Amino acid sequence: MKWIRARLAGGNEGQGGADRAAGAAAPFHALLDGDRVSPVRGDPFKGYEKTGEILRLEDVRLDVPVIPPTFYCVGLNYTKHIATEGLKIPDKPDVGYRANNALLAHGEDVVMPADATKVHYEGELVVVIGKRARNVSPAEARACVLGYTIGNDVSERNWQKSDRTFWRAKNSDTFKPMGPWIETDADVDAMETLVKVNGKESTRFHTNDMLFGIDTFLSTMSRYLTLYPGDILWMGTDGHSPDLADGDVVEVSLTGLGTLRNRFVRAR
Amino acid sequence: MKWIRARLAGGNEGQGGADRAAGAAAPFHALLDGDRVSPVRGDPFKGYEKTGEILRLEDVRLDVPVIPPTFYCVGLNYTKHIATEGLKIPDKPDVGYRANNALLAHGEDVVMPADATKVHYEGELVVVIGKRARNVSPAEARACVLGYTIGNDVSERNWQKSDRTFWRAKNSDTFKPMGPWIETDADVDAMETLVKVNGKESTRFHTNDMLFGIDTFLSTMSRYLTLYPGDILWMGTDGHSPDLADGDVVEVSLTGLGTLRNRFVRAR
Repeated sequence: MKWIRARLAGGNEGQGGADRAAGAAAPFHALLDGDRVSPVRGDPFKGYEKTGEILRLEDVRLDVPVIPPTFYCVGLNYTKHIATEGLKIPDKPDVGYRANNALLAHGEDVVMPADATKVHYEGELVVVIGKRARNVSPAEARACVLGYTIGNDVSERNWQKSDRTFWRAKNSDTFKPMGPWIETDADVDAMETLVKVNGKESTRFHTNDMLFGIDTFLSTMSRYLTLYPGDILWMGTDGHSPDLADGDVVEVSLTGLGTLRNRFVRAR
Repeated sequence: MKWIRARLAGGNEGQGGADRAAGAAAPFHALLDGDRVSPVRGDPFKGYEKTGEILRLEDVRLDVPVIPPTFYCVGLNYTKHIATEGLKIPDKPDVGYRANNALLAHGEDVVMPADATKVHYEGELVVVIGKRARNVSPAEARACVLGYTIGNDVSERNWQKSDRTFWRAKNSDTFKPMGPWIETDADVDAMETLVKVNGKESTRFHTNDMLFGIDTFLSTMSRYLTLYPGDILWMGTDGHSPDLADGDVVEVSLTGLGTLRNRFVRAR
């Protein structure tokens, strides 16, 4: 089952980030079946009912599928990527954070700030929490997951080194493309992550070759914190990105989850 | 003017964190004048109108005054605290993050996890954003601020050293008390921060003795990101905390902003 969050096409586009939920043309949740969009009252987290209306995918403009209460992101979870970045392999699953201001929908432009000099993609699996969870075992963890989507953890590597935190290196406006939808039925073990730049393969890896898996992360986190419906956990990335240039189009495809496509443009 | 967020006393208390907004007994925003509570429809960010009802403060149970879209927190912003923790003085204002799951209202208990061994308070000034802001100068920055409240950036010092991120050191459930209300009229220059443990003075400092001030932070951040109504920025702390024990009561008072009081209890 696929969940989208969308606005009617032709409405006010807004300017990304956390104000999506606050605008006059409020986005709605909907089920997607092929090309058919079935809007709902409510949402996939607290409960919903179909409005009975049927739209086509071309009638709507996709928004990020969820604005999370808390935005978790795993920093170093694939050995090749850790080696490429010259970092130490972690000995335990310490999760990090990203920020809602940076969220960007499928199809929208990543805007590279004028003084950004080394911008990279990071194709990632995103876990979407569906049910509140505290103190769950690894075996119980998957039951609190609603589904999966795709994230691009866009990073400016020079700021990542020079700054004490990732505030602008990873959380500048538009640096967190996510979508296009939440897929509730996915086989993470059989999943492959494929990243293309301008239509040409750039990175390919087995999605579940993680240092610490989804169940380990959710269970460990839940010993100290409550996971809430709508929280998201980005699972980290493998491989290496070229330095992206003005006009580059990056497509992140995960088996069964579709393709997240965004153009990278230089701020003027 | 004082803004509170509250529920009617006697209702379901919930269990802290991000689900406060989702419960059946939904919290409401209200203006507080002395002991008089004037509930509003809407909120101080998008707009409001008084319902006409008048309650007394004893009729309501205070909740955290805002659930932020993004929760910013300055890590090292006072020289004495940086020296005490044996850290390097930052040369630029790199902001960090905290997580909504950890938010806790005035009067509620901070629950120290069973394996937490060195829990400290950090009394902080909290800036609440009222208007959307991007690319504002330091002189323009204050115009996007709705008001101020008080935060206690509770920290487990051993995890702060042993983990790669602050996920459990600073974001375990209940580790972010905030409140009791948002005060829109405050003189930050004349402000003093006073922290008491069990009624006895423990730390006292001039609140605005910051390495980088509010205007510098907001202006710098807004070069790369959009500040949204409801976003919060915790300004860091000075001084040193004793190791807190089961049953300790910590009160953080800021001139003109009131007192944030929370008891610390050991998880059973």
